[in-house]
Amino acid sequence: MPGRESGAEVAMARDISMAFCYNLAALVKQRNKAGVRPPKPRQNADHVSELTTNRLSVYLRCLTELEAQGARTVSSQSLAEQFHLNAAQIRKDLAYFGEFGVRGVGYYVRDLKRHLRQILGLDRRLRVGIIGAGNLGLALADYQGFRQEGFEIAAMFDNQVGKVGQQSRSGVPIYDIAELRKFVKRDAVSIAVLAVPAGSAQKVVDMVVAAGVKAILNFSPGTLQVPDDVKVKGVDLTVSLESLSFYLAHGDIAQDDD
Amino acid sequence: MPGRESGAEVAMARDISMAFCYNLAALVKQRNKAGVRPPKPRQNADHVSELTTNRLSVYLRCLTELEAQGARTVSSQSLAEQFHLNAAQIRKDLAYFGEFGVRGVGYYVRDLKRHLRQILGLDRRLRVGIIGAGNLGLALADYQGFRQEGFEIAAMFDNQVGKVGQQSRSGVPIYDIAELRKFVKRDAVSIAVLAVPAGSAQKVVDMVVAAGVKAILNFSPGTLQVPDDVKVKGVDLTVSLESLSFYLAHGDIAQDDD
Repeated sequence: MPGRESGAEVAMARDISMAFCYNLAALVKQRNKAGVRPPKPRQNADHVSELTTNRLSVYLRCLTELEAQGARTVSSQSLAEQFHLNAAQIRKDLAYFGEFGVRGVGYYVRDLKRHLRQILGLDRRLRVGIIGAGNLGLALADYQGFRQEGFEIAAMFDNQVGKVGQQSRSGVPIYDIAELRKFVKRDAVSIAVLAVPAGSAQKVVDMVVAAGVKAILNFSPGTLQVPDDVKVKGVDLTVSLESLSFYLAHGDIAQDDD
Repeated sequence: MPGRESGAEVAMARDISMAFCYNLAALVKQRNKAGVRPPKPRQNADHVSELTTNRLSVYLRCLTELEAQGARTVSSQSLAEQFHLNAAQIRKDLAYFGEFGVRGVGYYVRDLKRHLRQILGLDRRLRVGIIGAGNLGLALADYQGFRQEGFEIAAMFDNQVGKVGQQSRSGVPIYDIAELRKFVKRDAVSIAVLAVPAGSAQKVVDMVVAAGVKAILNFSPGTLQVPDDVKVKGVDLTVSLESLSFYLAHGDIAQDDD
């Protein structure tokens, strides 16, 4: 049914677009204010945009790299130079969460890393359940990047008899989706990754929500209705391809100017 | 080798972060100027940020949906309301590429859709080759969203004897990667999707570049060195999971404020 799929895609794209627009508006607002007065350092994180958390993720990876190289301290300037980031943005992002920098020293790599992991909620091990043990689900179950950052792919769920009882190449077990609630509780699964066909996505997300999961990464091209206290993040692969298409048509996508 | 993987991930994250920082800087600059004078309509697209092309992708999906509903015209206001977008941003984005709006009417849905497809380079069929016929490659080969937007998954490439000669569920053939150059030319493949392990990503991207492909969507967690005229877009799934982790830790990611 092309009409349905199209509607679903619109909704997914809209979610992503909303995130862009709102986050940009917020950052523009922040930037505009910056000339008037510097942002006040705040200890809590009660209203932080997704772009900010994305940047914190990036800083964390840079610090992990620096630590592996044996660095004990780093200045925002040097961090920015080594990893092609924006030094002022680094200072602003970090100041928002408290005073981590030490005058004349910069940041202590290990301390800042620990703080960032705390801020991102990575100081505890988060268990992830993948719903749908098709090609995409299996690929995600064995994706190395998740494990390296402390996420544990605890289980996969499917409704196909032939799949239930099997496991992914790296050993993630596939359970019957009918038992989702039981395993979510038993394994303390806090994030669900949806890798199911668009047609069954809403039915599946209802089961996920009923099982008590509050955070969902959605690869299915579909609109998902969830309660207000559940966060859904969509991954849209078509938008990425279309920006490459634009590049091929015009030969120039700006990185530093609009 | 954890050190290597970590370095690779840092690089990937850095690429994504750079895109964020630069695009934001550009948009902030544009927004700051907006109060002084409105952006001049321009017919060409010689310097457009990736965030802009992402938004154009979203508008295109909305228009496809409206057309399916039988709408002939739409105002930016109504487009914004129906799809929860920003009306001023829509007008600004579209004005950048010319004068598509008609006073008292808004936009003609079909015409605007055609224009957007032209701007995004989607008025010709783009052929995509997927490198790596593992779970992820196979999942991407059968991903419906690509086809619906006019991308054609022409072929997959792998170096495993057992895979070469097979095909994906939807019938995408798997060729020997040694024949990449031949098939890229024969099938006019213009976009390569990399779904290979991090360790072989650079070797594979060298082959892709040597075969004449100028646009690459990279799912491998690795730094890729490419010539200046080749565009690489990375997809980082860990960043998405970490923003969900933050949400779980703090219960609030802002959509409309920082």
